[in-house]
Amino acid sequence: MSDELILYAAKGGGSAIVEALLTLAGQKYQVRYFSWEQLPDKELLAINPLGEIPALRLANGEILTETAAITLWLGDRFPSCGLVPPADDAHRAEFLRRLVWLVAAVYPTFTYGDHPERFVANDEGARQLRESTEQRCQQLWRQLEAELDGPWVCGNEMTALDIFVAVMSSWRPRREWFARECPKLFAIARRVDQIETLGEILRRNELLPS
Amino acid sequence: MSDELILYAAKGGGSAIVEALLTLAGQKYQVRYFSWEQLPDKELLAINPLGEIPALRLANGEILTETAAITLWLGDRFPSCGLVPPADDAHRAEFLRRLVWLVAAVYPTFTYGDHPERFVANDEGARQLRESTEQRCQQLWRQLEAELDGPWVCGNEMTALDIFVAVMSSWRPRREWFARECPKLFAIARRVDQIETLGEILRRNELLPS
Repeated sequence: MSDELILYAAKGGGSAIVEALLTLAGQKYQVRYFSWEQLPDKELLAINPLGEIPALRLANGEILTETAAITLWLGDRFPSCGLVPPADDAHRAEFLRRLVWLVAAVYPTFTYGDHPERFVANDEGARQLRESTEQRCQQLWRQLEAELDGPWVCGNEMTALDIFVAVMSSWRPRREWFARECPKLFAIARRVDQIETLGEILRRNELLPS
Repeated sequence: MSDELILYAAKGGGSAIVEALLTLAGQKYQVRYFSWEQLPDKELLAINPLGEIPALRLANGEILTETAAITLWLGDRFPSCGLVPPADDAHRAEFLRRLVWLVAAVYPTFTYGDHPERFVANDEGARQLRESTEQRCQQLWRQLEAELDGPWVCGNEMTALDIFVAVMSSWRPRREWFARECPKLFAIARRVDQIETLGEILRRNELLPS
């Protein structure tokens, strides 16, 4: 038994958000990468019945899954890390709303769109599902872009949401699209890219050139 | 301007969870019901660009959306209500993980399955999407059922998660399926049904016979 945090991960996935957050919170952790072809892996299924990364093994052996849940747990556990506005912060409600929106509205466009043939065997139907989830994803990002009014997602201070934006903007429709269509989100992502302590993590997750 | 909470709702929807939670937390609120045919309503779109219920107008005029975000906000704001295990509670991590899973894994089966033709115009494809989201929904509930070991979702104490189960188990595949396939979840839902202070809310949401 290790008392260190163990993160079950896949390069460039939602686990990259957790790697960055743990690093910014000054926490040590081990990472076990699965290849995307391995997923859902048997070892991972035993930990997370959804077979999805990230899964985080806590020091007490408990398994935490769901990126947003891990984010909130980090905020509870390490309140001084500044990644999650505390309960009495004026930005708390906005933070919670956008965090849940990212995982309950944006993420599912990938759940259903990455491998549409898992949900619709019919070729033409699968093509349409891929296309409609892509459109929905773009529409959701445009909606967030339109609502932003600070240098960061939650105003003047960087929070965990900015790390979500940096990693998720490397997924479809990818950074070039963000540069063109969502310049405020793109600027946030570029600022996160440049945080020195995140360089190694972003490079090993292939989110920055090595 | 009202300093009362205003909940934008639709009968039997995710807003019924929020109505129940606000009531259990002893909060006063007004409800504005939209009919399902009205959604996405223009008034609602101005408040929540997703056009989805629930949306909650806070006393300061801020709009909070996303059922899980509203739940966490309630826990922050009214810690003594017992609906959200506090940051130092042994069940906090489990609570966060299951809360996010409910809205990021289970809810999207309805987002994509309720009106599959919004995502796949092709008739056969839409039929398959409806069927596959239904299967996924059932698989997810079975997974939670298999993991439960207390009288409530988070062990010995009722939390907000039990209210989610009570309301969501009235959605497809509906209570009869739960009674047969997920007896522990069904028993939780039935216990919530019997909480006297919730009777009026459950009846007006058509979740209990009037």
